Amino acid sequence: MKRSRRLFRTRAVKEGLPPGTLVHLGEASSEEVAITCFTYTEQSIQEQRTNAIDSFLPPNANKGTIWIDVEGVHQVETIRHLGESCNLHPLVLEDIVSTLQRPKIEDYDDYLFLVVRMLIPAQDGDFSTEQVSLILGKNWLLTFQEGTKGDVFEPVRERIRSGKGKIRSQGADYLAYALLDALVDRYFTVLEQFGERLIGLEEQVSLHPHPRVLVQLNEMKKEAIFLRKTIWPLRDVLSFLQRDDTDLIAESTRIYLRDVHDHAIQAMDTVETYRDLLSGMQDLYLSSISNRTNEIMKFLTVIGTIFIPLTFIVGLYGMNFKYMPELEWHWGYFSVLALMALITLGMIVYFRHRKWL
Amino acid sequence: MKRSRRLFRTRAVKEGLPPGTLVHLGEASSEEVAITCFTYTEQSIQEQRTNAIDSFLPPNANKGTIWIDVEGVHQVETIRHLGESCNLHPLVLEDIVSTLQRPKIEDYDDYLFLVVRMLIPAQDGDFSTEQVSLILGKNWLLTFQEGTKGDVFEPVRERIRSGKGKIRSQGADYLAYALLDALVDRYFTVLEQFGERLIGLEEQVSLHPHPRVLVQLNEMKKEAIFLRKTIWPLRDVLSFLQRDDTDLIAESTRIYLRDVHDHAIQAMDTVETYRDLLSGMQDLYLSSISNRTNEIMKFLTVIGTIFIPLTFIVGLYGMNFKYMPELEWHWGYFSVLALMALITLGMIVYFRHRKWL
Amino acid sequence: MKRSRRLFRTRAVKEGLPPGTLVHLGEASSEEVAITCFTYTEQSIQEQRTNAIDSFLPPNANKGTIWIDVEGVHQVETIRHLGESCNLHPLVLEDIVSTLQRPKIEDYDDYLFLVVRMLIPAQDGDFSTEQVSLILGKNWLLTFQEGTKGDVFEPVRERIRSGKGKIRSQGADYLAYALLDALVDRYFTVLEQFGERLIGLEEQVSLHPHPRVLVQLNEMKKEAIFLRKTIWPLRDVLSFLQRDDTDLIAESTRIYLRDVHDHAIQAMDTVETYRDLLSGMQDLYLSSISNRTNEIMKFLTVIGTIFIPLTFIVGLYGMNFKYMPELEWHWGYFSVLALMALITLGMIVYFRHRKWL
Amino acid sequence: MKRSRRLFRTRAVKEGLPPGTLVHLGEASSEEVAITCFTYTEQSIQEQRTNAIDSFLPPNANKGTIWIDVEGVHQVETIRHLGESCNLHPLVLEDIVSTLQRPKIEDYDDYLFLVVRMLIPAQDGDFSTEQVSLILGKNWLLTFQEGTKGDVFEPVRERIRSGKGKIRSQGADYLAYALLDALVDRYFTVLEQFGERLIGLEEQVSLHPHPRVLVQLNEMKKEAIFLRKTIWPLRDVLSFLQRDDTDLIAESTRIYLRDVHDHAIQAMDTVETYRDLLSGMQDLYLSSISNRTNEIMKFLTVIGTIFIPLTFIVGLYGMNFKYMPELEWHWGYFSVLALMALITLGMIVYFRHRKWL
Amino acid sequence: MKRSRRLFRTRAVKEGLPPGTLVHLGEASSEEVAITCFTYTEQSIQEQRTNAIDSFLPPNANKGTIWIDVEGVHQVETIRHLGESCNLHPLVLEDIVSTLQRPKIEDYDDYLFLVVRMLIPAQDGDFSTEQVSLILGKNWLLTFQEGTKGDVFEPVRERIRSGKGKIRSQGADYLAYALLDALVDRYFTVLEQFGERLIGLEEQVSLHPHPRVLVQLNEMKKEAIFLRKTIWPLRDVLSFLQRDDTDLIAESTRIYLRDVHDHAIQAMDTVETYRDLLSGMQDLYLSSISNRTNEIMKFLTVIGTIFIPLTFIVGLYGMNFKYMPELEWHWGYFSVLALMALITLGMIVYFRHRKWL
Repeated sequence: MKRSRRLFRTRAVKEGLPPGTLVHLGEASSEEVAITCFTYTEQSIQEQRTNAIDSFLPPNANKGTIWIDVEGVHQVETIRHLGESCNLHPLVLEDIVSTLQRPKIEDYDDYLFLVVRMLIPAQDGDFSTEQVSLILGKNWLLTFQEGTKGDVFEPVRERIRSGKGKIRSQGADYLAYALLDALVDRYFTVLEQFGERLIGLEEQVSLHPHPRVLVQLNEMKKEAIFLRKTIWPLRDVLSFLQRDDTDLIAESTRIYLRDVHDHAIQAMDTVETYRDLLSGMQDLYLSSISNRTNEIMKFLTVIGTIFIPLTFIVGLYGMNFKYMPELEWHWGYFSVLALMALITLGMIVYFRHRKWL
Repeated sequence: MKRSRRLFRTRAVKEGLPPGTLVHLGEASSEEVAITCFTYTEQSIQEQRTNAIDSFLPPNANKGTIWIDVEGVHQVETIRHLGESCNLHPLVLEDIVSTLQRPKIEDYDDYLFLVVRMLIPAQDGDFSTEQVSLILGKNWLLTFQEGTKGDVFEPVRERIRSGKGKIRSQGADYLAYALLDALVDRYFTVLEQFGERLIGLEEQVSLHPHPRVLVQLNEMKKEAIFLRKTIWPLRDVLSFLQRDDTDLIAESTRIYLRDVHDHAIQAMDTVETYRDLLSGMQDLYLSSISNRTNEIMKFLTVIGTIFIPLTFIVGLYGMNFKYMPELEWHWGYFSVLALMALITLGMIVYFRHRKWL
Repeated sequence: MKRSRRLFRTRAVKEGLPPGTLVHLGEASSEEVAITCFTYTEQSIQEQRTNAIDSFLPPNANKGTIWIDVEGVHQVETIRHLGESCNLHPLVLEDIVSTLQRPKIEDYDDYLFLVVRMLIPAQDGDFSTEQVSLILGKNWLLTFQEGTKGDVFEPVRERIRSGKGKIRSQGADYLAYALLDALVDRYFTVLEQFGERLIGLEEQVSLHPHPRVLVQLNEMKKEAIFLRKTIWPLRDVLSFLQRDDTDLIAESTRIYLRDVHDHAIQAMDTVETYRDLLSGMQDLYLSSISNRTNEIMKFLTVIGTIFIPLTFIVGLYGMNFKYMPELEWHWGYFSVLALMALITLGMIVYFRHRKWL
Repeated sequence: MKRSRRLFRTRAVKEGLPPGTLVHLGEASSEEVAITCFTYTEQSIQEQRTNAIDSFLPPNANKGTIWIDVEGVHQVETIRHLGESCNLHPLVLEDIVSTLQRPKIEDYDDYLFLVVRMLIPAQDGDFSTEQVSLILGKNWLLTFQEGTKGDVFEPVRERIRSGKGKIRSQGADYLAYALLDALVDRYFTVLEQFGERLIGLEEQVSLHPHPRVLVQLNEMKKEAIFLRKTIWPLRDVLSFLQRDDTDLIAESTRIYLRDVHDHAIQAMDTVETYRDLLSGMQDLYLSSISNRTNEIMKFLTVIGTIFIPLTFIVGLYGMNFKYMPELEWHWGYFSVLALMALITLGMIVYFRHRKWL
Repeated sequence: MKRSRRLFRTRAVKEGLPPGTLVHLGEASSEEVAITCFTYTEQSIQEQRTNAIDSFLPPNANKGTIWIDVEGVHQVETIRHLGESCNLHPLVLEDIVSTLQRPKIEDYDDYLFLVVRMLIPAQDGDFSTEQVSLILGKNWLLTFQEGTKGDVFEPVRERIRSGKGKIRSQGADYLAYALLDALVDRYFTVLEQFGERLIGLEEQVSLHPHPRVLVQLNEMKKEAIFLRKTIWPLRDVLSFLQRDDTDLIAESTRIYLRDVHDHAIQAMDTVETYRDLLSGMQDLYLSSISNRTNEIMKFLTVIGTIFIPLTFIVGLYGMNFKYMPELEWHWGYFSVLALMALITLGMIVYFRHRKWL
């Protein structure tokens, strides 16, 4: 049910509102919004964690690359202020706070606007998603995360801080790539977890087919639909990034984006394989359940059938007719016992011959 | 059945009529057609509600933006008069009054002709649709609604009256966008309602699988087909609007249309998800029903099987043979009782061991 | 079976014949071929019904628009003569008389060759098809109909005769459009009839599921396949006509052809919806049948199960052991009756509790 | 099984061989390879049947059109010799002798290389296939047939010999068309045969559903897969021929090729229809079988249920209690008989009322 | 289960690592990496097998064609060193050691990077895969194989050594083709093996339907999914190679690549056919199982039904009523026997007539 609810959340509450109205859609949160600002060149690096973002707005180009990361989008005023400072289109701001967006990319000439979804594995093998919006300018990058409790970007921050790799020597486009790469890599963690559960379920299907297995199969099918919904549009986003001739993305970065695109296709492939396997498992479950029931019924029916003529015979000699010659015979009882043993034997042989027993 | 009828309505009655013949297709209505005319610039706003539309025909460009909204298309004479005044193509008029159109867009150089469908949620979770035709000229917009009892455009009218937002400073193309946006937003209300019913049904499927649930599933499947038919072609309409190089739509408006297009894709996605879920629920229902029946049959057959040998034994000692030594024994009766208790026990143990009980 | 035969007719008989060989494929007919020739300008109109077509061959351009309509294509000699006079390609003639063509369009520079299919509703809700070939030249149109017993073109002829509408002021391309429009409009009549039968069947499925319903479902599915085969390629034909830059079709006529194209898409949509509904009905039928049988079996098995211990008890006291103390008790019989009543009651309560009864 | 084998034949045996190695794949044959050479212009015709092909190699252009037809491709030396004389690419020769090719077309600038498959109807309604390779040069055509026992090209040879039709006045491209046309026409003969068997099976499904019908259905499904595999790629071949701007094919011939393309689409359509019908028949079979079994089980269970209380009653009065007042009554026996008749009647009425009987 | 695990392996372990990090994904191996270097021109050939590759790095163009083949990619340091010497992009190196790549092709201007998968048939009809990466430069080719235990390239090496065929006279592009050709040819060996198992299973399905057959069917379905995943993307790789205008591939080689592409399509076709057949077999299995069970149940129920009235009759005359006239008759017993014989006969005749026995 929970899964279904998740699949059903829509933007229905926004009916009647003018475009560009900032309404936070998603789970309410009372957490403080955290804003981190990285300013770096190949030589220098400055990291600020603040709630007052005015000091570094609008992102100033001549100081190197600027990355402003906003964790939490439920305080619409902060978003509006930031948006106005950076001269963002009202629809972009609206999409940032409406955290039920489908992954997409939009080109606003001066900047690219990307919406993607982060997968967050939960303890019980389940997972949740969180919207991440990226706005990529000439040498600045804004990122907006739905949640405030940690993300997959920490390794990227580490790399910026330490100056390892080529991240500091590249522009904002490479930074955007690095974040997308971290995000897609996380998908595989969730997919692997999903795969483990699937293998567990597969064992249950073949060894202990039980109705509750079917419910679990159905739940996993819904999760696979959900994963598909999350990953599928990402492919278009990444293929757009790779192909488009916007000059916001350097040629050298495109090669890296091709790599992420490739990973997204791999992830999608894996989800499709899961769906195929789940559907195969359902077939297997249904037929093994039906097979098991049939086996039992067949066995019992065969047993019952063996007794049917015996019961008839004992009923026959339970009749109270005055004149029934067999009843008078001294060996009558034993003959009947012998006869019944014979019949039983004959039927068993016959049923075995027909492979019914 | 009602749903089926709705899906089957066709334009069969028009066979043999020449093109451009105005015949109202759809539910007959005796309501008066209501015509509202908005004329506005950024500074001024004039709203007229009238039945005589001659006064502001043809829409005159130099006074700002003109929006003529016709509620009710069953009075074909009004439509014909309006069409002739505005120099509309006969086929456009024909489509306006044939309220069974598929959403579409047609470019007549001087104006764009759009047909879309409005969803109207009903009390019982059901919904109906209504055709809305838009004709977008240089600085005028004609809209034709099938029904006369309220619409989703009221918030837009409010915005025009109050002058809030940028609607009054933009042209007719932005107005068309605002109306389409309001219309698509309403889809989510209907989809959310549909989703709620679906969750309710899902609970029933897993907790109280009953044949009537299947009938409801089938009804919802038909509704999903209907929703799909309504929303799918809308995507093409919106993507046409976004891409086309007609100069009737300003570049700045295209960005907004991209947003509506995005929402339409989201709505379509949701419908597809519903279809997947409904089909999963049907599988679940069928197997839980069959499972339940099998469980009962198995239990009863096992019970029956336990009694079969017992009944045979009591029949055995009901035989009337003269010489049956056991019958003479003093403890015969009790021995047989004990034997039968033993057999029963043995079978129960066996069946439990085989996991049949 | 009849439907299957219809779906299976192929051009197998033509194996080994050289291209351009005129062999009439289709149902033989002894009817006389009827030829009607309309010659009209905006002012004048001349209608000739004849068997000797030489007088107005080849179609002469300077007299206005010429429409030669041939009803019946089984007299290959007439067709050959006509074809030679008009300088038609032998393959065109071959296709005209092979009445099992798939709808198609071919551009022969001087003229367009179209093959479409007319649907003819029958009395019993069934329908048949008839091939119609159109050859559209600069200002002449040849049409060939397979049957000789009426067609859907009468309203068009009426319009030409009366001069109503714009048909007389337009060229042969508009005439071709008018005929195609009449033809597609007829589709909706057949589709509506089909829909009516489908609703009838749907009622039967839910109220009186009977094996014969399934046979009817299967028949309707085959008819839907047949309709799909007829309508699907027509879309390509019409979209070709609309897009192609042949100068045989005026720009103003293209707008009308777009309208017919639209109707063809609507018709196709309807067929697809029917297929979805039929498949939903089949699911519903199968599960309601299986459900009904299961209910009966369950009820009877429960009844049977209640009697099983009772029958055992009466068998028990039918044993002939010398020493069975209960048999001697004065209230023994009545105690057993009471015991059995108790058991029955207990089982009924238990089964009701488990919701089996 | 035979059908499966046919579907599974692969080129596995060629693993490890260098490209251009001539290995005959297919059924071995000890037949002599027959080579026929036609050289014709509009006025003259020369036909030679020989084993020594050197005399007319390489095909010499100035004598008119040359058609060398090789029946049997199992003598790889002959093929190699011919290939070298005509300067053919080694891969072409390899494909000619590997008779498990998928239909395809390849453009080698100087010549076109086509692989298609001929269908050969067998006596029992079954059919086999044979690879036909065509190499079309400027004014020469080489054809290679897998088998040596007759083909579908005889009518074409007849037409060349007699000079009827336009075949002698056209070039090698028209000859290639004529051969392809003959080949595709043969498909319809096989399809018609297939259709006849399908109708026969359909009758059996509805009248005598028997497990062996399902096996036959499955066999026909496999054959349909096989037909699909044969015909589907042919469409691409023919559409390539029709569109491509190679100057090996004259404009006038393209119109004829369009016709063959059309027939191939018709053939494909028919196969798809067959697949739809087969799948419908399988549904029908399964549900009619299950229906029949259910009917029997229901009937018998109802009969059994009627006797259950009767058997209980007669058991009741078979008890040996000392004091059972009913047993003493003079009319006791007859009252019980009457009671049982009443019960039987009541149950029959009840079951009929519930529509179980 | 094993198969499922294979399908589920993902790159999850790489989460959080910067791009270009060389981490070996795949089965660990302690084997020594073997490096073979071929340097050849049409006249000369030099083959070196070494662990120190520095001597011939970077591949030097003026000595003819160089092929460096690395067997084993688990020693990432070797790969890194080689990559740096050849100036390869870090992402290329990363993909080489991540042996879970999807087949793909990437154009890095100076070289083409291909990832394909080799199929390795196992003893038991099963198979495994191994990643093969190719880097094709101007006149050098690097290949990286996952495994160290033999490959399908031996025949190619033989051809280079012996100088047979045209391989030595062609460049690195032809060598790459030869390797791809060898690789794809191996697919057919695996497919043929797969096909043999499928035929075996098909026989079992029709002759001995047993639940374990279904498990095997499911396993084979999973293998088919796996094969599909391996072969499908290869088509894109080969079609890219064939079409692309990179000057790394000579025109004459493209003709050969077209041939491999063709084989890949054949392989894919075969896999699709297998999937169709497997799905047909599952249908057949399920219905033959259900049919068999139904037959048994029907037979036994019919037998049971015949005895029901007989048992009733013998119970009837087992009643202890004082006055039961039949009991007194001398021929009573025999009359009842005769009556029962009659009833039995009547029922058998009836059941046979209804075709239930």
